[in-house]
Amino acid sequence: MDVKNFLFGYEHLCIVQNKDMFNVAIDSLLLPNFITINKKIDKILDIGCGNAPIPIILSTKTSASIIGVEIQKEVYELALQSVEANNLGNQIEIIHADINEIYSNLENNSFDIITCNPPFFKYSKESNINKNDYKTIARHEVTLNLEQIFKISKKLLKNNGIIGLVHRPERLIDIIEGMRQNNIEPKKIQFIYPRKGAIANILLIEGRKNGNSGVKILDPIYLNESNGEYSEQIKKMMK
Amino acid sequence: MDVKNFLFGYEHLCIVQNKDMFNVAIDSLLLPNFITINKKIDKILDIGCGNAPIPIILSTKTSASIIGVEIQKEVYELALQSVEANNLGNQIEIIHADINEIYSNLENNSFDIITCNPPFFKYSKESNINKNDYKTIARHEVTLNLEQIFKISKKLLKNNGIIGLVHRPERLIDIIEGMRQNNIEPKKIQFIYPRKGAIANILLIEGRKNGNSGVKILDPIYLNESNGEYSEQIKKMMK
Repeated sequence: MDVKNFLFGYEHLCIVQNKDMFNVAIDSLLLPNFITINKKIDKILDIGCGNAPIPIILSTKTSASIIGVEIQKEVYELALQSVEANNLGNQIEIIHADINEIYSNLENNSFDIITCNPPFFKYSKESNINKNDYKTIARHEVTLNLEQIFKISKKLLKNNGIIGLVHRPERLIDIIEGMRQNNIEPKKIQFIYPRKGAIANILLIEGRKNGNSGVKILDPIYLNESNGEYSEQIKKMMK
Repeated sequence: MDVKNFLFGYEHLCIVQNKDMFNVAIDSLLLPNFITINKKIDKILDIGCGNAPIPIILSTKTSASIIGVEIQKEVYELALQSVEANNLGNQIEIIHADINEIYSNLENNSFDIITCNPPFFKYSKESNINKNDYKTIARHEVTLNLEQIFKISKKLLKNNGIIGLVHRPERLIDIIEGMRQNNIEPKKIQFIYPRKGAIANILLIEGRKNGNSGVKILDPIYLNESNGEYSEQIKKMMK
């Protein structure tokens, strides 16, 4: 059943969800709060937009036009409803497609920013998983892998345009290697820790097309305080 | 003038320093506290050992034999004095040599661990610096660069042996790329921040020869509390 929920703590913003598919995760809050946005940005692409949390949160930070692409029909329909429910149809366009099939139809060197909350897990044909399951497609690299994301970004980003990813720290090395192989230079990284003393469980990374080498590691973010409540850093994002 | 100082807070350990050259930095405390040491380790190489702080701190954690190689004659002599002052001549051997010239004389696939606190800054022939200055050689990649370190490590490490580096976070991407090009897989990374809210200023990274992909990002270390004192994490290392 589709239900309309508040989008984190954002006043006036909501998201249409289906409890049987998946809920908006904290990843969708972190990425738009991490990515470098300035006033000159005018075109953003969100690859694998799900029910559109990233485009919707980005709309609070920029007036750039935002395109979200979603491969799964039922999820795409939730995205349309989410955009409509927030009255953002003028700023956000949602396309139902496989980005691998349609990216060559989009204009080369035209996007200032590409965002992506991609599937996290490697997929092999031997993996014993249901390829058609909503969650599988969102979580495993069945229809979209890192190599494809960076190849597409290299083609679609303006010179010096940026790609921002939210991913798992275990994959940091693959991500860095994939970026460099496509002339995308990692410039900014931030790690998210579930709490003090734990290893990182979320990675935010921003790369710049044809950027100079030299990366900054931002201050860590803790998700929770020792009492289990969200940290002040996260509460500040949920405004 | 050479002076004998306590090595951080280690009881019974001291280091011989020359104030005109350079003092032992916190980097030398962090790396031996970061590197993975188990009971099976029996051979360690420290490349560019300076006045031997890393071998000396390592001696408190392992009974493995440790070789330190130092290119600068005057610094090598300080290292000898430091080893002697701690009565560690049975465990630590210091060699005065350019590692690039002598590594092929060392046995292939024979070291369990290689440690290195290398020069941090890129060097180009156009750089307007004095190539013979002690500090220049220790800080700029005049006589040792990342590519050389990883090429040497690939040759000298046992299969599954590890290399641990302390470096600057800006160079993370170069380090990861250099490791992968030499079949060394980054497995463990830790960032050090001068204080809360600041970007990281020190990087610790450990790679494993022929290791599987998958890296862990350890909990951050803060050098100082907001009152300017060393943090509890650092104080715990200075024992």
